[in-house]
Amino acid sequence: MIAGEPNSSHPVIDLRDIERAAEVIAPYVVTTPIVPSEVVSSKLGCQVAFKAENLQHVGAFKARGATNAVMGLDDDVAARGVVTHSSGNHAAALARAASLRGIPAYVVMPENSSETKIAAVRGYGVEPVFCEASNEAREETAERVRLETDATLIHPFDHPAVMAGQGTVGLEILRQIDPVDVILVPVGGGGLLAGILTAVKSLRPEVAVIAVEPEWANDAARSLMIGKIQMPTRYDTIADGLRTALGANTFPIIRRLLNEILLVEEDQIRTAMRSLAEEAHLVAEPSGAVTLAAIQQYPARFTGLNVVAVVSGGNLSFGKCRLGQPAGSFDV
Amino acid sequence: MIAGEPNSSHPVIDLRDIERAAEVIAPYVVTTPIVPSEVVSSKLGCQVAFKAENLQHVGAFKARGATNAVMGLDDDVAARGVVTHSSGNHAAALARAASLRGIPAYVVMPENSSETKIAAVRGYGVEPVFCEASNEAREETAERVRLETDATLIHPFDHPAVMAGQGTVGLEILRQIDPVDVILVPVGGGGLLAGILTAVKSLRPEVAVIAVEPEWANDAARSLMIGKIQMPTRYDTIADGLRTALGANTFPIIRRLLNEILLVEEDQIRTAMRSLAEEAHLVAEPSGAVTLAAIQQYPARFTGLNVVAVVSGGNLSFGKCRLGQPAGSFDV
Repeated sequence: MIAGEPNSSHPVIDLRDIERAAEVIAPYVVTTPIVPSEVVSSKLGCQVAFKAENLQHVGAFKARGATNAVMGLDDDVAARGVVTHSSGNHAAALARAASLRGIPAYVVMPENSSETKIAAVRGYGVEPVFCEASNEAREETAERVRLETDATLIHPFDHPAVMAGQGTVGLEILRQIDPVDVILVPVGGGGLLAGILTAVKSLRPEVAVIAVEPEWANDAARSLMIGKIQMPTRYDTIADGLRTALGANTFPIIRRLLNEILLVEEDQIRTAMRSLAEEAHLVAEPSGAVTLAAIQQYPARFTGLNVVAVVSGGNLSFGKCRLGQPAGSFDV
Repeated sequence: MIAGEPNSSHPVIDLRDIERAAEVIAPYVVTTPIVPSEVVSSKLGCQVAFKAENLQHVGAFKARGATNAVMGLDDDVAARGVVTHSSGNHAAALARAASLRGIPAYVVMPENSSETKIAAVRGYGVEPVFCEASNEAREETAERVRLETDATLIHPFDHPAVMAGQGTVGLEILRQIDPVDVILVPVGGGGLLAGILTAVKSLRPEVAVIAVEPEWANDAARSLMIGKIQMPTRYDTIADGLRTALGANTFPIIRRLLNEILLVEEDQIRTAMRSLAEEAHLVAEPSGAVTLAAIQQYPARFTGLNVVAVVSGGNLSFGKCRLGQPAGSFDV
């Protein structure tokens, strides 16, 4: 399955795929909590609860899709291993899923990947294959490894089993909280968004699903306007997980089912990260904080509503930031 | 009920009080999640899961006890309001509980309390009564307010209804996770510890309950050794919630039921806060991080065990710490 032009035939996943994925991955993933915040809610004038995928294994929803894809392979195919290229959470998620199944994983990472992310992959017993830091080098290296090993490519978001796995987030939200008027979902490649849309619009079509992306990575908004997948024009948003174009499989689902898309400013993302940490006591990475950023930036849109904001990941290094100064003055 | 010498008669709470408290507070508090961490577990050689009371309303378990105490008052008594002195989470918890019941709260706070904590109390519609920053001034001011208003004093930890409310944490843990070999609980005044001990030792006496306090606030360890409540000898641990002596009601329960107490270093508390944030994606205040600090400092004690570490609170300001640097280099 290759990202590119929209797949014009029927959607590659449906509700049944997501329900099956939920059964397959149940032993391996966390049913992440819904975390309500009175403080955030009272500040923003709506009932805000966070779907805390930052508390998922590997610190992101990516554990769901990767696990579903790996567990779904036939034994003989699985034995040859899986391969992907990723500088982010999918790399660790695939390494973990492969390790759970006891098969090899080949993870191609740009040589400038952060130490934290390299360490996460190594933590699951996988030594990354390093390549130059360009999209071309990543894809070429992954293809070379695939040909050498005959391993199965698990695309980070456009693989149907990955999309179905991410959709289990939507199933859980509907089971965990009621009433819910709006679900806010970050959009990068669209795997999480397409999965949640498929689940929610099948079961509770009246619940609005709103996508959020950074203004500096507004390719999904432009794609929806034009009706054709557009590439990002810049790659410098702090929300590094959302710098990706939509995929051939994710785009048609999003186009058909999405209620609305909101764009957020970089400063709003930073403010949302701080609010999540100080007011909701959750660590979110920038990509995971864009949903709260959207409520902050467009509060009138949400007044009085019951809103679930998906916090998609929490992998953040605090660097030299000193935690635990004397009470009342935690300044650094 | 006044803190001081041990209450030598039968314990002031039992399992039934805690079960009743669970029913009373259910509409007003969060059933906080158990958050497992594969990364922390694999580093420390035991199965670690966090009972995330940092995700409780007001950011700490204190919401439970305060709500139970306030909801348990007769209408005519409740109408005259409640009073307490606290520079910490109990202040916000009592303000919130009073606001939920629609009665006045008088919260005496030292004039040097942090802006964050003052703002938290004001956030629940209560203007604090400020006093000098000494224990004497706090108690005298609270007593003066009590006499003036005829409000009911709700002691932060030694009040039976507060202890019963905190004990609901223990009920939830036993319902939420199995197997569990050890539960680690921070100890300051002992309300949370006495409550959890009462619940756990009634239902699953074979589960070990281990208290954790800072070496710099080792009064509980000394009290247990000598068999008589000892005062702290210094008040400078970063775990500001644990700078308190045990109470007349909490001490006898702890003395009778506790399996073990561990003391942790200040640096271990800081390391644990960072590990909670970076590896488990939870924001813990220093007092909430002592339980993980104990596993870090004494890993051999826990090898191979299923450990629940209670993260009692998450109220932490990040001050000038900049969150959300470009991916891979979040240094500040």
